[in-house]
Amino acid sequence: MVAPIVLKPRWIWTGTELLTGRCLELRDGVVGAIVAAEAHPGVPEAPGRLVLPGFVDAHSHAFQRAFRGHVQWRPADRDDFWSWRDRMYATANGLAPEGVQAVSALTFLEMAEAGVTTVGEFHYLHHAPDGTRYDDPDELALRVLAAAAQVGIRIVLLRVAYARAGAGLAPRDDQRRFYDRRPDDVLDALTRLGKDARVGLAAHSVRALDGDWLRELSAWRGVVHAHVSEQPAENEACLREHGEGPLRVLARAGLVSDRFTAVHLTHPLAGDVDLLAEAGGAIAVCPSTELDLGDGFLPVDARTRARLCVGSDSHAAIDPLGEVRTLELHGRALAGRRNVLAPPGERHGLAARLLRACTLEGDLALGGMGKGIAAGEPADLVVLDLDRPAADGVPPLEAAVFDGGPGWVDEVWVGGRCLVAGGRHLAREQVRRAAAPFLG
Amino acid sequence: MVAPIVLKPRWIWTGTELLTGRCLELRDGVVGAIVAAEAHPGVPEAPGRLVLPGFVDAHSHAFQRAFRGHVQWRPADRDDFWSWRDRMYATANGLAPEGVQAVSALTFLEMAEAGVTTVGEFHYLHHAPDGTRYDDPDELALRVLAAAAQVGIRIVLLRVAYARAGAGLAPRDDQRRFYDRRPDDVLDALTRLGKDARVGLAAHSVRALDGDWLRELSAWRGVVHAHVSEQPAENEACLREHGEGPLRVLARAGLVSDRFTAVHLTHPLAGDVDLLAEAGGAIAVCPSTELDLGDGFLPVDARTRARLCVGSDSHAAIDPLGEVRTLELHGRALAGRRNVLAPPGERHGLAARLLRACTLEGDLALGGMGKGIAAGEPADLVVLDLDRPAADGVPPLEAAVFDGGPGWVDEVWVGGRCLVAGGRHLAREQVRRAAAPFLG
Repeated sequence: MVAPIVLKPRWIWTGTELLTGRCLELRDGVVGAIVAAEAHPGVPEAPGRLVLPGFVDAHSHAFQRAFRGHVQWRPADRDDFWSWRDRMYATANGLAPEGVQAVSALTFLEMAEAGVTTVGEFHYLHHAPDGTRYDDPDELALRVLAAAAQVGIRIVLLRVAYARAGAGLAPRDDQRRFYDRRPDDVLDALTRLGKDARVGLAAHSVRALDGDWLRELSAWRGVVHAHVSEQPAENEACLREHGEGPLRVLARAGLVSDRFTAVHLTHPLAGDVDLLAEAGGAIAVCPSTELDLGDGFLPVDARTRARLCVGSDSHAAIDPLGEVRTLELHGRALAGRRNVLAPPGERHGLAARLLRACTLEGDLALGGMGKGIAAGEPADLVVLDLDRPAADGVPPLEAAVFDGGPGWVDEVWVGGRCLVAGGRHLAREQVRRAAAPFLG
Repeated sequence: MVAPIVLKPRWIWTGTELLTGRCLELRDGVVGAIVAAEAHPGVPEAPGRLVLPGFVDAHSHAFQRAFRGHVQWRPADRDDFWSWRDRMYATANGLAPEGVQAVSALTFLEMAEAGVTTVGEFHYLHHAPDGTRYDDPDELALRVLAAAAQVGIRIVLLRVAYARAGAGLAPRDDQRRFYDRRPDDVLDALTRLGKDARVGLAAHSVRALDGDWLRELSAWRGVVHAHVSEQPAENEACLREHGEGPLRVLARAGLVSDRFTAVHLTHPLAGDVDLLAEAGGAIAVCPSTELDLGDGFLPVDARTRARLCVGSDSHAAIDPLGEVRTLELHGRALAGRRNVLAPPGERHGLAARLLRACTLEGDLALGGMGKGIAAGEPADLVVLDLDRPAADGVPPLEAAVFDGGPGWVDEVWVGGRCLVAGGRHLAREQVRRAAAPFLG
């Protein structure tokens, strides 16, 4: 029998409990066992290291990384979500397949170095910029999958259905890469891609899909994600078209279930969060992007029963711990109180709840089992280095959530393979070089 | 003539312009000259390094670092600013002078590693926990100054005047370390301390000082800081006592001028921000603490004419770039638009304005000249390492502001002396060891 890989950190947070004095044994890509530290006397304890389940980035548009930092200047009277979107479309339409792959790989590299082991890629670039189908209709999806494989992180390809520019609007030339002709085109693509990859349906939004499309797409039995109520204008247009708001329209079409994730839900209508909670669905909050775009804040508090996960969306920043911290902190500012997501009575309950949002809850939202670190589960791990002044005297989970960030990531393991060591991905320089021509 | 120290980064942002192809020469603690890179052919360019004026943390209560992470759990129905304050008082009253010094040094160490070269310490621990004066009445102020000297960062001691628990309230036992008997006690302390240190007056708040105190304190000719409108309850009590809000009460007492900084101003009353702007004063925004405490957001936008600087306040986090980023991003969410602090027409104007908030504007708020990197000015510098995936393809100022953090700090120089190299302070381990017994 081959000897296992042994990790002996100071702390292990499994997703449900915080352990000390233990080792993790990794065998054949999975967690073999969690054993007493004494079982491996020859392995020194890694000082101040905290092992967590790998982070899950539940909502990504990887190519949008290409123009990071180039849209942070046009004054507010001339810039909002919609003008940003025009600029984003220009980037989307400027990338050939090799550019899509190279930029996606850079994004996934940055994710890996930030502790992400699984990404949900909400993928809507399907065709050539003029709308022509590629010889392989899945060309760009395969490029994105290849990018994840290059970097070694897991990916769930959320294949987007996009059919129109909005209710009653003519097709837009700059959306031709996204449009499908029939719902079956989307379902067929999911079937093809699903043979070799984990996939899910992304019903883009009620802007991009009418009622007929939504109903036909509800035939899909896997995970479903959709942008919901990101902008007030989206709610208003939906109310005009359907007489009810986006989440209710999706629910009426049969898309809202415990396999469903509402992305954003920044401007929920009355009853939306409870509707989602009752269905067993989740909200993928993307605080850094929602702030960047001036979307607003999801009003979370202790009454928020829907499951919560996070995504880095436009990649204005990639920092899963920052996302969950921001989620809680905005809730505080809106409520005028502290610890708004804290469960009653648990000393470390708030930090644990927030960590679950960027680990187990994200995994569940992407069709995983959400079991965290447990015997027999994939060895997808992030190792944080808490041996630093900022963490001195701070309980480990609170240090990670309230002060941690990408700079704290020491190692990242996916399927028992070490991708990141000393905070650097092993293929860092080659991935950076390949992406450089496509940025800016 | 002794050869200068030469820095040859990829970029130098002086505080007003972004330079490439230049070297900084440091002599006798000051910037000697900014010369062409070719002037020092033997010095290799530091890859991807961006040199900025050192960050200024304009509002700090260093001892509050002691309980970081231990108050992030009590559910919102039992925790807000006021209950947090009770917990903070318990920490304040548990620290002997050596504890105050050791914890302050750890805070300043973390600041230095985050790029801070000058701190404004709003210092209100003066006496023994039972109110007894120490043999040296400045004992604790001197401890804080000694902590900064240990770490090597500059400090402006903002000596607090605190006289009461609030309008019409009996003195609180847990505030006895703060109370002074007469305004002259404060002014005398400022005179004593000012002989060997940079000092300023901290008129704690309109809660802690009545109209007579405020008027007598206005005799002080140096910089003045005060907590202003952090909480709605503070505004309400002030309106009851004075018939007008905190900033107007301070102005009527003669304290608001171009030497004045309003700390927080999270809940300004109508006209407050303009009043401050017309006086030439500044706002010290502390976003990470204001969010942590559920205070709310300062509503900034393009019409905000008052000068803006930042502080880490309670030290829930220490991250000057994070503070200025958060300031802008909250403004976006409140406005529903992007780039709310962007000056018109300047491509990198928003990033520059935000960087000025954590550099030059902070320096001005603490009585400095606010000149940034210029010949003859103190060589207080932070060197960021932008040679990383997150900054690839991103303009340097935007990378720093919108993605940077403590993990990006490579070197920190104060007065021409290198304190931090490779992201680590040279006295890191001894400062950590000394603080450890006083944390938690």
